Amino acid sequence: MANPTAAMLVIGDEILSGRTRDANMHFLAQELTKQGIDLKEVRIVSDDAAAIENAVRALSEAYDHVFTSGGIGPTHDDITADCIARAFETPIDVRADARALLEAHYAKSGSELNEARLRMARIPDGAELIENPVSTAPGFTIANVHVMAGVPSVFGAMVASVLPKLTGGSPLLSQTLRVDRGEGDIAATLGSLADDFPDLSIGCYPFQINGVFGANVVVRGVDGARIDAAVTRLAKDLEL
Amino acid sequence: MANPTAAMLVIGDEILSGRTRDANMHFLAQELTKQGIDLKEVRIVSDDAAAIENAVRALSEAYDHVFTSGGIGPTHDDITADCIARAFETPIDVRADARALLEAHYAKSGSELNEARLRMARIPDGAELIENPVSTAPGFTIANVHVMAGVPSVFGAMVASVLPKLTGGSPLLSQTLRVDRGEGDIAATLGSLADDFPDLSIGCYPFQINGVFGANVVVRGVDGARIDAAVTRLAKDLEL
Repeated sequence: MANPTAAMLVIGDEILSGRTRDANMHFLAQELTKQGIDLKEVRIVSDDAAAIENAVRALSEAYDHVFTSGGIGPTHDDITADCIARAFETPIDVRADARALLEAHYAKSGSELNEARLRMARIPDGAELIENPVSTAPGFTIANVHVMAGVPSVFGAMVASVLPKLTGGSPLLSQTLRVDRGEGDIAATLGSLADDFPDLSIGCYPFQINGVFGANVVVRGVDGARIDAAVTRLAKDLEL
Repeated sequence: MANPTAAMLVIGDEILSGRTRDANMHFLAQELTKQGIDLKEVRIVSDDAAAIENAVRALSEAYDHVFTSGGIGPTHDDITADCIARAFETPIDVRADARALLEAHYAKSGSELNEARLRMARIPDGAELIENPVSTAPGFTIANVHVMAGVPSVFGAMVASVLPKLTGGSPLLSQTLRVDRGEGDIAATLGSLADDFPDLSIGCYPFQINGVFGANVVVRGVDGARIDAAVTRLAKDLEL
């Protein structure tokens, strides 16, 4: 059976302007690979309502799961939750259980649960909360979309709350063979290998170190024995 | 006049599997911001022909410029050039000027210009070559799509070849004000500032250092005097 598929939607002007380097995508990619969920596409859009809504709709229809990061804080530019509600044509309002979480949290820290912070309890109808052990304000899952914070420590904690609940597939395994030859010298051999192992993905990633050209050949798939066979054959073909 | 808009398309299984952390997006975002071209969207797709073609078509229609990275090397998984040709319904073949560049390069280095390497001279009809001072094999521009390599040193050199030829807009300027208060405490003030400066983008990026909550408020726009005014007003409102 094919693995479940996923897409990620990163929301934030700060990534697109080059101010911030996104860290969540790389983290999520690694976690999904371990769990056998195939990340097929990532989109990064700005804090723009139409862009967010259109991307959520398109990705939610195309993939089994969508993971979003960013835009669920207390400030005016945090518009993700409302956009998700509109994308699913469902009402959104402050929800009692989310509000109770925030009340307890801010009572303990001595901060005021003001109007801005209360926005973080706005949850679309029919959603399920995602636990946030770092800073309390929850994410949520609606249909196949998991809505999480952009701050990397919080995003990571929310991913850890969500992933165990999802049905994974066969974890993607890989082996890497480093070849100290130019990519163009081994391309024909790799092409023939790819033809003979259509169930595996064979990638070639060139590098240049101290003027020497080489390439890392990465063989990926869900069947460890097949990967072994392909790497053994490759080493033999290249006379390594 | 509004700035030109741009999208980036990153092509590569190695990013989506979490093996490699993309570096080109962050670099391009910074370069475009300097030149006054607004990066509006990034998509990352796998080495899959349909995914590449669909993304190229969608982004080429929606934005003034599209920058792609990855998939133009000599190996079987380098399918970008052929996908771009199909997306624009134009023929593709080995082109004489691109071939001559590779011949001279490999003659000098003593390597063979074999069939695999010759694939790097496949250029869609009507495209213009993008110079590659690092490793010779050229990128190309067709319509509003700039097709470049994924290896960061080569991608960077190609961006440097392309960007001076594009008409930029007003560079995006920004000022950052660090506020040592919780995001929720300053949200109302920021919302009011955003209402009064609709021409500026006001972002709030929370952090937590040694248990203290704070936020960097970033004010972005193309008019330096307006940004000054907004930051001065913010400091006054927050009694900093």
